[in-house]
Amino acid sequence: MSTRPDLDALLPGILARQPRAVARGLSVLEAGGEPAAELVQRLHGRSGRARVVGITGPPGAGKSTLVDRLAQACRARGETVGALCVDPSSPFSGGALLGDRIRMQALATDPGVFIRSLATRGALGGLSRSTRDGVDLLDAAGFDWILVETVGVGQDEVDVVRTVDTVIVVTVPGLGDDIQAIKAGILEIADLFVINKADRDGAERAVRDLEMMLALAGEHPAWLPPILRTVASRGEGIAELLAAVLRHRDYLESSGALRERRLGQLRLRVETLLKERVLAAARSEAGLDATVAAGFAAGEDPYSLANRLFADVVRNERNGPQDGRREER
Amino acid sequence: MSTRPDLDALLPGILARQPRAVARGLSVLEAGGEPAAELVQRLHGRSGRARVVGITGPPGAGKSTLVDRLAQACRARGETVGALCVDPSSPFSGGALLGDRIRMQALATDPGVFIRSLATRGALGGLSRSTRDGVDLLDAAGFDWILVETVGVGQDEVDVVRTVDTVIVVTVPGLGDDIQAIKAGILEIADLFVINKADRDGAERAVRDLEMMLALAGEHPAWLPPILRTVASRGEGIAELLAAVLRHRDYLESSGALRERRLGQLRLRVETLLKERVLAAARSEAGLDATVAAGFAAGEDPYSLANRLFADVVRNERNGPQDGRREER
Repeated sequence: MSTRPDLDALLPGILARQPRAVARGLSVLEAGGEPAAELVQRLHGRSGRARVVGITGPPGAGKSTLVDRLAQACRARGETVGALCVDPSSPFSGGALLGDRIRMQALATDPGVFIRSLATRGALGGLSRSTRDGVDLLDAAGFDWILVETVGVGQDEVDVVRTVDTVIVVTVPGLGDDIQAIKAGILEIADLFVINKADRDGAERAVRDLEMMLALAGEHPAWLPPILRTVASRGEGIAELLAAVLRHRDYLESSGALRERRLGQLRLRVETLLKERVLAAARSEAGLDATVAAGFAAGEDPYSLANRLFADVVRNERNGPQDGRREER
Repeated sequence: MSTRPDLDALLPGILARQPRAVARGLSVLEAGGEPAAELVQRLHGRSGRARVVGITGPPGAGKSTLVDRLAQACRARGETVGALCVDPSSPFSGGALLGDRIRMQALATDPGVFIRSLATRGALGGLSRSTRDGVDLLDAAGFDWILVETVGVGQDEVDVVRTVDTVIVVTVPGLGDDIQAIKAGILEIADLFVINKADRDGAERAVRDLEMMLALAGEHPAWLPPILRTVASRGEGIAELLAAVLRHRDYLESSGALRERRLGQLRLRVETLLKERVLAAARSEAGLDATVAAGFAAGEDPYSLANRLFADVVRNERNGPQDGRREER
């Protein structure tokens, strides 16, 4: 194990929104394990105030540019912005970081903006866990807005956007047949739709398609997701988008939906932690790798192996040294 | 709970490759739970013979057409094909099914081909679990080839393609900037690259970009992923693609990599089952929903809640009725 980070020293800097402390804190969260757990626990009472907005959609939709423009619009209101760019597909986090830094150049010298890429594939703990922990940290640090950008439309991305308050789904005209599947899958989690690059051919059709999908999906008693058009590269439609985000925020607060949503977020986070916990226990206490290798050689099926490992975990958790350390995590 | 399916009646039909029995069996697997576990356990000894090929890539890459053409090419060799089209983004499985059936019309009356869409988002058990179980079933049913098509590039999709023997990554010329991230993320899992719609502008550049990425990624001591070009809609390049798949299969068998890969697949399946297991236990035995709701009201943090639930699961598993039923799963 590496040296345990000194959270006592880190915490005041995070709460004072010092960029280096915020960056260090996010690294602690990305690394996972007990320090991450402790940091979240210590920040917990201070978070819950920020507006957390997710931006998702297929590759090539121009999400990054949209996030840039949205951040600028928030800054123009005198509000601070923390952005997490979640890229589960890239193992090159260095590259992603560099890319974002170049991308966000206009904002790079503004102390009211903090941008960080998360690309922790393969690290201990899933991406939705570290993303949500990161949102907590930025929230506790006092950023007014937290923007979470995620590429793709798989289950992992859905889990990520389920941890935000307002979900913006971005698409572009003429993306091909698979767009149907994407739209279907994210219909239920979208609070706002954006047709970006709306100066392209097919924008009208994209709007009509979305409207039809929404109509097919049935009743939206309280909030009907608006469909907005932007040309993010030229800043067109950004003011309208921000206004729609604020309207959605008002709806969330006045209807009580925000409370409901944050309860759902907590449930998802707890489930994610439970899954990580059982895997960690199976690896460290029940010899998962060796058990699977032996089972493979013997032609055992996965269900029997999982049952044996689970029973071993339960036995070891009960019999192992109950020194309280684990409970404190 | 619904009626328990009669696996004794189902099993002979599956092993005889009767379409209705195969379809029923896949539904049992999609539904998850103990019947799924029992079915996989009973089929386990009969599987392991099929060539399992995954086809993945971004939306709009033409994966569906490629799968159709590949299936036709396998049929032309006199071999049977089972195809699973995994669409984690679509909640409308009926729609997906219909779409595939229209799509695969040319193959629809051929008893040597079986096509099924999996879209079990929200069902008990994840998509990678039910997909891999489905591959087992088609394998035990005696299909020579199993093609697994999956949209997207998120972690969930990566988990799906990690359960196949040969991974084909499909892309198209000029897909936009995000393609860089996609390529980076799937580099390490790709066994073959396909530039589809290779008659479009930018095909040469797409090939060069991929070659550069592969060069940057460093050594490939044993297998260098070839880059193929297809125009699937016209059937161009399909014979060459199938030949490359067969070469990869030879490599897997002669090098011992197949054994290594299948051990990794088993490990991934066991891990997935462990995660499902702890969640099921937390829900049914430790009152996950009520505990989270109470914790939310009290302002508890997710880590403390997860720790308490995990301790409850362990206690209940030890103290609960040990009737052996669970162990038999």
